[in-house]
Parts: sequence; structure tokens; C-alpha cells
Amino acid sequence: MDVVYMDNNATTAVAPEVKDEMLPFMTEYYGNPSSMHTFGGQVGRKIVEARERVAQLINADPSEVIFTSCGTESDNTAIRAALASNPDKKHIITTRVEHPAIKNLCENLEKKHYHVTWVPVDKKGNLDCDYLYDHLTDDTALVSVMWANNETGVVFPIAEISRHARERGIVFHTDAVQAAGKVSVDVKAAEVDMLSMSGHKIHALKGVGVLYIRKGTKFSPFMIGGHQEQGRRGGTENVASIIGLGKAAQMAKAHLGAGMEQVKSLRDRLEQGLLKSIPNTILNGDKQNRLPNTLNLSFEYVEGEAILLMMDKYSICASSGSACTSGSLEPSHVLRAMGVPFTAAHGSIRFSLSVYNTEKEVDFVIEKLPPIIAKLRQMSPFWKEGTCRAQ
Amino acid sequence: MDVVYMDNNATTAVAPEVKDEMLPFMTEYYGNPSSMHTFGGQVGRKIVEARERVAQLINADPSEVIFTSCGTESDNTAIRAALASNPDKKHIITTRVEHPAIKNLCENLEKKHYHVTWVPVDKKGNLDCDYLYDHLTDDTALVSVMWANNETGVVFPIAEISRHARERGIVFHTDAVQAAGKVSVDVKAAEVDMLSMSGHKIHALKGVGVLYIRKGTKFSPFMIGGHQEQGRRGGTENVASIIGLGKAAQMAKAHLGAGMEQVKSLRDRLEQGLLKSIPNTILNGDKQNRLPNTLNLSFEYVEGEAILLMMDKYSICASSGSACTSGSLEPSHVLRAMGVPFTAAHGSIRFSLSVYNTEKEVDFVIEKLPPIIAKLRQMSPFWKEGTCRAQ
Repeated sequence: MDVVYMDNNATTAVAPEVKDEMLPFMTEYYGNPSSMHTFGGQVGRKIVEARERVAQLINADPSEVIFTSCGTESDNTAIRAALASNPDKKHIITTRVEHPAIKNLCENLEKKHYHVTWVPVDKKGNLDCDYLYDHLTDDTALVSVMWANNETGVVFPIAEISRHARERGIVFHTDAVQAAGKVSVDVKAAEVDMLSMSGHKIHALKGVGVLYIRKGTKFSPFMIGGHQEQGRRGGTENVASIIGLGKAAQMAKAHLGAGMEQVKSLRDRLEQGLLKSIPNTILNGDKQNRLPNTLNLSFEYVEGEAILLMMDKYSICASSGSACTSGSLEPSHVLRAMGVPFTAAHGSIRFSLSVYNTEKEVDFVIEKLPPIIAKLRQMSPFWKEGTCRAQ
Repeated sequence: MDVVYMDNNATTAVAPEVKDEMLPFMTEYYGNPSSMHTFGGQVGRKIVEARERVAQLINADPSEVIFTSCGTESDNTAIRAALASNPDKKHIITTRVEHPAIKNLCENLEKKHYHVTWVPVDKKGNLDCDYLYDHLTDDTALVSVMWANNETGVVFPIAEISRHARERGIVFHTDAVQAAGKVSVDVKAAEVDMLSMSGHKIHALKGVGVLYIRKGTKFSPFMIGGHQEQGRRGGTENVASIIGLGKAAQMAKAHLGAGMEQVKSLRDRLEQGLLKSIPNTILNGDKQNRLPNTLNLSFEYVEGEAILLMMDKYSICASSGSACTSGSLEPSHVLRAMGVPFTAAHGSIRFSLSVYNTEKEVDFVIEKLPPIIAKLRQMSPFWKEGTCRAQ
């Protein structure tokens, strides 16, 4: 069997249709959209189309969409813009389970005279919204809460949180990198001020992202340079990737119904198959309130990285923690925030599916993983046959 | 004839070899280099190779090279890092002819308690280095001087300026976006602390750039997120474009000798042909001390944009001013800094060639442009037959 790719929250395959849409802009149409000549102008028109397609995915106006180089840049831009627009306010509210793009930036800001409130989650990974609302103050410049968590897939009540922030006149940003394309993301319904997206999580190329900025939101650019993106983001446009992202957004919108239902059905099949055949396995994250593609399981008393290595022999790709924090020996900050015990947090594996996965692949994983876990447990000094969570 | 593309300082064609190198990473090899599995790891190894190739182009150590999303990001990162590393110093020295990525950022910083010295150029576009040296103070945090100007192609004495900055313990950055690949750029010989490059100026894709950071230079990241680029730039790597940039850097190095000689010979043929056949034409920029591919001419008493529109009918692509400042009705800030008179600055056209241009294309422009200028001058209220610069 070829690669069984179940690591779509880390990155996704570029859709063939996306690649086809990009190719002309990597060959004959290489003009600079800022140029005065027709050769550049024709490129600019395709960027307009891409912006419309992205806007349609999130129910925005195209003028509210700017293209960036990645989700991280979108997050950095949103936070810096909110703080620059409210120079007298020194308080930020975010959560304990954000992506490093928010988490590390906010930790950095804590060292620079900002006070950050880190909102906790419960053991299912759901946000303690009352804690958040209790900490809104007149000094709060920004609330930034991810739409859905990258590791567990747990979805946060963005519209409700946004409403509370708005009632206090506080800027609200959401990192929707994992949510967009998997669940309905409607900026008008949720009434968010800013929203981040990433191309390579929805089958576009790596190296392109989106920041939605609601009309009327105070903004100052993060990347200062030329007049591109109506003065909101300097730097020559990543033309081919932006055009590809437009196509990917169009496809993601089309997949939101039946496509994601199919993904969910495969995810559920995988979940049931593994829970049934592997004892002492814990589902991390709220079973119901979760992205349709994400399955985070802890196999007690084994190391996640050892599991990954053994799955790798069968070309099964998944993650322990997020790709952006891998390389660290620390257990996932998300699972720790949920209070997952040490012995389970270290053995967590995230499977994240896409519309390209098949039932055959799911069944292959259900067949191969149980003996891997059994073998690793036999080698573990902490494992005793018959040990189970209930004890 | 197909498009006659002489706007390579705005952007370049993606080299077919670059596209071929990228394609596998837009199709089968789509893993995230941060992932633990082999599928991601194999991508990481190609990024190592790309980093080595870029390092070779500028004579750096690969560990000194970080990938960014564009030249603008590299410039923003360098300036912000230098200021963050010297929080007590509030003085910046740069030139009056920088790209908007430096110019607009420094203008922005002027509003935020920084004092900026704008070093002038003479009428040939050469930098007044003594002015620069006279303004170095104990409060100077950073000197940023472009390696070569994007509009005139004039090359600045980077090694000498860098030495003066270093003697005073001041961080030196150079925007080498236009110089890299056209003239020898050697960071060891020039002893610069930081250097910016852009992929799409050397036949790689738009949306990828480089920041060189000399070993030992104090640095703090601009884009804060994951651990990528050894913690120096968060955000999932733009894998395919980085790999393409590696190939482009390798090709640019190979073209530095005979390839650029050929470009220079075509540029000179174009220059001589146009100067000979069109009266009242002024060469902007130092004839000798100039990038081999750049030709900036002012056709007095005509509007640059009108010339572009009429050349566009023949699919001849060039620029008036830089692409990054187009859309503005202001004459080029570079030509204004050189004291080019209003009537000439407005009629300036930049031709910028590449290894893909041909003698046939040059001769086509030499044939088509003179009647265009003549026609436009007949329509101009300022033009009188027989007027010439000497009068």
C-alpha cells in the first residue's frame, strides 16, 4: 500500500485541481500584478477571483480578505494590529490550548509589559467560557480564541465569545486554521473582527494564508512595504499560491456537506475500530463537539513517538502532538491543559483525515496498530497485563 | 512576437528547471517537514539542500540562512531584530533611495520615537558615503543600505559601508534583493550582519525570500510561532518554493559569469540603440557602476505611463518606477533623490533584462519605441521640436 496519510491537521496533499490552477502562473503568466502592463494585469485579475472564492468560504466581503504567507503570519498580524490599535490597553485574553503562533507570541508579549489571561479547558477540552467572561476588563485590548483545536479537534463557541467581547468593545480574533473547510465558518454569523486561515490545511500549497479583517476594524500592517493588499500587507503577492488557495477554498466549500460527512464516517470507523481492539485507550477531546476529521487517542503506557516510528514502517502517517511543537520532548500543552495523566499524554496519537482517505486505509490502520501497541507495551516497564483505566 | 519581457527587476519568469524541481513537492511529496514520519522527513532533507544552495550563492554558512516569505519580510525582520537587540538606541541610518520595504518601515518608525537619517545620492545615483559616515553616532542601532538600487541599478559600496558600521559596533543590513544573482554577492567579503534576498527576482516563485543572519549577530524573530528555521521564523515552511529557490540560487551562481556578460551586452545594445534613435533621452544612474541588466532612461516631455501603454500594444513589458510603488502618481522617489528634473522623471522607463532575453527582442524594442516617443511628444504641450537637454 502507498502512504496512508492521516496527518491532515499538520498539512494536506495539494489537490490536483489546485495544482492545475497554479501551473499557468508558474510558467507562462509570471507577471507582477503591480505592473502597469497587460502581462501583469492579467495576473491581478486572477487574484481578484481567488479573493472572492476565499471570501465565499467564510461568508466575507472580498475586500475584507488579505493574503499572507501562512496562518502564523495571520495570527501575528491580527494580534499586533489589535495591540497597536489600542495602545493604552495592556491585557490580552487567550486560551491555554492555542497553536504556538498565538501561544508563543503571547508568552513573548508577557515579557513586554502585557498581561495575558490564559483561559483553561476542562478534561474534554471544552473551554471554560465563564472564566473568560469573568476576566474581561476595561484594560483588555484583545480576545483571541481558536475556532477549533488542532490536536483534539474540539470546537469552541466562537459566536458566543465574540458577542461577549463585542459588548465590551474589545477586538475579537479567532485562529480558524483548523476549522475552515472542516466545519462551517461564517464570519458574519460569528461576528468576529479578525480570523486567520492557512492554505496548506485545505489542500492548497504551503506558504500562503489569509487574514480576514472585518470592515471597520482598526488595523495597522505587520509587514510594511509596498502598496499591496491595499496597503495592509507589503510584499509581492505569492501569485500562484494565492490562485491555488482560491481554488482550494472553492473546493472546501463544496466539500462541507457530503464530503465532510464521509470524512466523519471514516473517522468514526477508525475510532470505533481502535477503541474496540486496543485496551487502555482513551479518547482525548469531546466526542460530540469535535471536528469531523480529527481523532486523538492516548494509548496508555507507551510513547507516542515509538508508535509513530512503528507505524512509519507501514507508511502510516499521523502525529503525536502538533507538527509545530514536534521536536520537543514535552508532552502536548493541550493534553496537559486538559489534565490528561502523564502516562496517557505521552502516548497520544492524532489521526487527522481528509476527503482523500479511504475505507481501505482506515481498515489497514485498524489491522496494523493493535499489534504495534501490544508489542510496545510488552517492552514498557510501566505496563502490566490487565491494567486498565478504571483501576 | 510573444511577450517581450524586460521587467525582470519587478519579477522574473520561473525557470523551467525550478518548476521541475518544485513539482514533486506539489504532488506526491506533500509532507510537513516538522512531522515525525519518513514522509515528512524526506521533505526536510530537500530543504537542507536548498539552504546549502542559497548559502553557496552568497558565500554563507547554511546555518546563517533562514527562509522567509519575501524580500519585504526579510527587510522587516532585519530592521525589527536590530532594533529589538539594541533597545536603548533610537537612531537608524538608511538611504533616500531604498525599496518601500525599508523606506516605508523607516518612515513608520520615525513616528514611533526613532530618528532616521536619510543618506542622499548624487545625480548619478551614487551614495554620499561621507554623509553616512558623518552621521554614525553612539545612538545608531542600525545602518541599512541596499546593495543595488532597483530602479537605476546603481551599486553601492557595501563592504566599505559595512566596515565603517562595524568599527562603531553598529549592526549593518543590506537589501540585496536586486543585486543577488546579477553581481557577485559575498557576505564574507562584504562582512554584512544581515542581508535580504527575494526568490522571484532570480527565477524562483513569488512568495519566498531569504534572510542571511551572520553567526553571532543578535537576533529576535519577527514572525513568532513554531520552532521552524531553528526558532528564527515561525510558520510551516513554504516547502516547494524553498526547494525551487534552492535550484534558482544554484542557477544564478552558474550564470554570474558568462550569463550576466551576455545580459550586459544585450542591455548595452538596447541602451545604445535607444539613445541613438531618440533625442532628448537621458540615462538615469551611473553608466559604469550599475547592475548589468538594468537600463533606466528618461524620455523628456512624455509620461512614462503613456509610453508603457503604447509599448503594451506590442507586448513589450517594462516599468515606470518600481512595481512596488506603481499605482502612485508621484514620480519615482529614487529619481527625485537624484535631482532628475520633473519633466524627465515623469518620462522614465526602466528596462530590466534577464538571461532569457534575446537580441531579436532588443532589436524589436529599438524598432518600436522611437515612433512611440515621437507620437507622444507631438501630443505633449511641453514638447517643442528641437528642444534638447543642452539648451
